Amino acid sequence: MRIATFRSGGRRRVGSLSPDGKTIRPFDLGAAEELGALAVIERGLRADSPSLGASIPTAGLVFDAPIPRPRRNIFCVGKNYHEHAHEFAKSGFDSSAASGAVPEAPIVFTKVPECVIAPGAAIEIDPAASTAIDYEAELAIVIGKGGRGIKKVDALKHVWGCTIVNDVTARDLQAKYKQWDIGKSQDTFCPMGPVLVSADEVDIANIDVKCWVNGELRQDSNTSLLIFDIPTLIETISAGITLYPGDIIATGTPVGVGIGFNPPKYLKHGDTVKIALSGIGVLENPVRQRGVSADAKIAAEARA
Amino acid sequence: MRIATFRSGGRRRVGSLSPDGKTIRPFDLGAAEELGALAVIERGLRADSPSLGASIPTAGLVFDAPIPRPRRNIFCVGKNYHEHAHEFAKSGFDSSAASGAVPEAPIVFTKVPECVIAPGAAIEIDPAASTAIDYEAELAIVIGKGGRGIKKVDALKHVWGCTIVNDVTARDLQAKYKQWDIGKSQDTFCPMGPVLVSADEVDIANIDVKCWVNGELRQDSNTSLLIFDIPTLIETISAGITLYPGDIIATGTPVGVGIGFNPPKYLKHGDTVKIALSGIGVLENPVRQRGVSADAKIAAEARA
Repeated sequence: MRIATFRSGGRRRVGSLSPDGKTIRPFDLGAAEELGALAVIERGLRADSPSLGASIPTAGLVFDAPIPRPRRNIFCVGKNYHEHAHEFAKSGFDSSAASGAVPEAPIVFTKVPECVIAPGAAIEIDPAASTAIDYEAELAIVIGKGGRGIKKVDALKHVWGCTIVNDVTARDLQAKYKQWDIGKSQDTFCPMGPVLVSADEVDIANIDVKCWVNGELRQDSNTSLLIFDIPTLIETISAGITLYPGDIIATGTPVGVGIGFNPPKYLKHGDTVKIALSGIGVLENPVRQRGVSADAKIAAEARA
Repeated sequence: MRIATFRSGGRRRVGSLSPDGKTIRPFDLGAAEELGALAVIERGLRADSPSLGASIPTAGLVFDAPIPRPRRNIFCVGKNYHEHAHEFAKSGFDSSAASGAVPEAPIVFTKVPECVIAPGAAIEIDPAASTAIDYEAELAIVIGKGGRGIKKVDALKHVWGCTIVNDVTARDLQAKYKQWDIGKSQDTFCPMGPVLVSADEVDIANIDVKCWVNGELRQDSNTSLLIFDIPTLIETISAGITLYPGDIIATGTPVGVGIGFNPPKYLKHGDTVKIALSGIGVLENPVRQRGVSADAKIAAEARA
């Protein structure tokens, strides 16, 4: 099942996409539809749900993030691909580098729920807050069945499915505040979507992860190269923290982020970040400077 | 105004306490009462609210945490008192110690909303997850009016009030995972309460913070000694992260935690942690080993 959350008639709706993505069958869930795919997960609805309505075309629909407003911060994993761990340790921004480039245990931090934005929505740069904003293409998994003390061997039974996340990061703030939550939680710093794909439709241990900035391929890897695989992440987090349906775990980004270049290639007004994950889809977001319209800067540059 | 959330007739209620604490006037807010004090804050209710009912005695009431289930992770501040920063850096558990004992900017991490527990509820020790559990007495402030880019000079206008938090910490996990969210977010690791006191009733820059374990005074300080004061914390977090009504910021703990002793004094089954903040109240929680009843261990010890 491929779930999408979208805007229609002034409100939020959620539906099941056809295999070709050209049509969608909205669920009839009343006020719970404001939760997007979270309503489907929390109610345990499947593709044969009687609450599924008639198909409508997806052409022209405005998609929202599948889970527009998670119920708690998103769990995120840092330095979870070898080559990225080395590029980050070398960058000078890694407050954990003193203990080695490659971590001996998963590094888990969070992003606030309110920094989630929809496909196509703008990643905002606020020069007053940060001047070193970077992209991170990631597979995110969504918990279906909650639990505590989940063992690796059982972990995949707890995964509802997966989506794409751009773990946008203010590198200067990530370094300055030592703990990473501030640098990772800035407003608009979690583009998500466009769809939530159920676990039976993909092999989460073998997904191509690619990222382009303005059409230039920057990241090109595969989730088979994760240092700590998804069962290990679920076992680690759930050992003492009860997981709930709808919890999101962003699994880490591969080599090729902006600070891996010399000089660093930070995101700037007018850029476009495109992330493609095989079997899931394409998440694309423009970058805008706060308070500057898309056209104003282009006009200024044309005059210069 | 002093707000308390409590259980009554099988459901959660929230009310305004009398100055002597002997009676409480419950708000009549219907289903929103499940949110506890969050409903009062989000609706901007005051002591003259027409939704306040008649006084009932507090004797025998079971208090819940004022905000039993925050809408997102609690912001927490690390190493925010000088002497504690030094005791933590010396302990060997501080993954940020390489950059100096005393931080140059606030260190902000989070605790998941679901680890909040009520006054009197048990802090659970799970030896399978951690063998190094510590207490941290803290003043927590609650945001009333949200915002972004809040300046220090305006920050206190955004504070609804304050409460007590015990920022319980698994020291082994805090060190192992580098980022602190896992070690700080274990189930039951955020005792909170018993009351939420509005900002006009206390001077948040001059609150005595005391903590006893089994009657032994361990922490004894004052919020005037915070390295980064509350306006600075609000300015720092809100610079790029929009704050919302009901957001909670735990402001850090003073010297005297368990790892400050040699050997460390970790919490163990049967302990009681009591925290008193002047002008706010007393938060007391027992410590229980998961799966062991309070009586079983005492009986086992008596037999030994």
